[in-house]
Amino acid sequence: MSNSANVAVVLSGCGVFDGAEIHESVFTLLALDRRGARYQCFAPDIDQAHVVNHLTHQIADGESRNVLVESARIARGAIKPLSQFNAQDFDALAFPGGFGAAKNLSTFAFDGADCTVDPDVERALKDMVAAGKPIAALCITPAVVAKVLKGADVTIGQDPGTAKAIEAMGAHHTPTEHKGVVIDPNYKLVTAPCYMLDSTISQIADGADAAMEVLLGMV
Amino acid sequence: MSNSANVAVVLSGCGVFDGAEIHESVFTLLALDRRGARYQCFAPDIDQAHVVNHLTHQIADGESRNVLVESARIARGAIKPLSQFNAQDFDALAFPGGFGAAKNLSTFAFDGADCTVDPDVERALKDMVAAGKPIAALCITPAVVAKVLKGADVTIGQDPGTAKAIEAMGAHHTPTEHKGVVIDPNYKLVTAPCYMLDSTISQIADGADAAMEVLLGMV
Repeated sequence: MSNSANVAVVLSGCGVFDGAEIHESVFTLLALDRRGARYQCFAPDIDQAHVVNHLTHQIADGESRNVLVESARIARGAIKPLSQFNAQDFDALAFPGGFGAAKNLSTFAFDGADCTVDPDVERALKDMVAAGKPIAALCITPAVVAKVLKGADVTIGQDPGTAKAIEAMGAHHTPTEHKGVVIDPNYKLVTAPCYMLDSTISQIADGADAAMEVLLGMV
Repeated sequence: MSNSANVAVVLSGCGVFDGAEIHESVFTLLALDRRGARYQCFAPDIDQAHVVNHLTHQIADGESRNVLVESARIARGAIKPLSQFNAQDFDALAFPGGFGAAKNLSTFAFDGADCTVDPDVERALKDMVAAGKPIAALCITPAVVAKVLKGADVTIGQDPGTAKAIEAMGAHHTPTEHKGVVIDPNYKLVTAPCYMLDSTISQIADGADAAMEVLLGMV
């Protein structure tokens, strides 16, 4: 299967506990490339909410990192500030997961349903919807999308607390298993649980692949 | 194809320019999991040689990061200090690439053929060879292996300067293209070029997969 779509991929740092989930991000890029799609990575040029030591799981007091600079590690330097994103230039938009989505792209990790969303993330989502172009969101990022796209149908897997917060934002949550996706045809939105379920790395590759298959099919 | 091997994967940080190459690392883990192999990540508990801003490609003066702590980002926390590695516990050993191999696991990036190798890396390599167990090395890591395993047959792709340094260490270099591997049956060593060649992300997935296929076949 080939596809000449140009896809913007929004990262939120580099590492599951304070940034973009690395496996989900890499498998998203792979799934796009495997289908002949092009991609361009973006991230907001802002400080991370905090830095988490991924060995001890503790917050690294006094340390500060930039979301764009850290996301560049996953993108091997080929990344742009999200402020430069223009919906006219892309056929689709994809958000891999990781706590960075709930900490840097929004305040969902801290404020739940009362969260705020990074203005460039909000603009990117709304501009794509206005242009009738599809969006994919993996793992926890559907919660961010649910805050912006009112009444969206999404999935984050099985977690009851997150599902409840999503419903409190006026969205609708459908539980899913591995490889499961939820498609909202109104918003041209596909969501998938990935590491919001206990997963092997192969299941994450399959989950990201399933979501990109749907995303490119909606282009 | 299924395989019950237990593989130690040695990381060297998190990010191509100062640590483990993220795509190669993730695809190494995926290739092992796809074949039913288990894996355990390791990294030396040492400071990185330096921190590189992956957006600007400049050294971040005054910043310092730990190789084990940063590698934990790729491993999602499931990682051990390389000092705890015991060859008796594993069937095979794998080194994804990235400049971290040449900067943190060894001084090859700074000293070329006159480099030194981290003592735990050297011990891991020698103990696996002594136990008759196979080793895989991707990208630039064959240069590190070549320093330790005298006269090894390896590949790092096409780069003439690196190939020359490898030959200067008494090893033998064979050029390769994408998906190409070099097998040294004496050392049970498989090497593959990955991002030492200009590559798409799919080519890296294929390259890591080809190397892991050979590695597990030698178990």
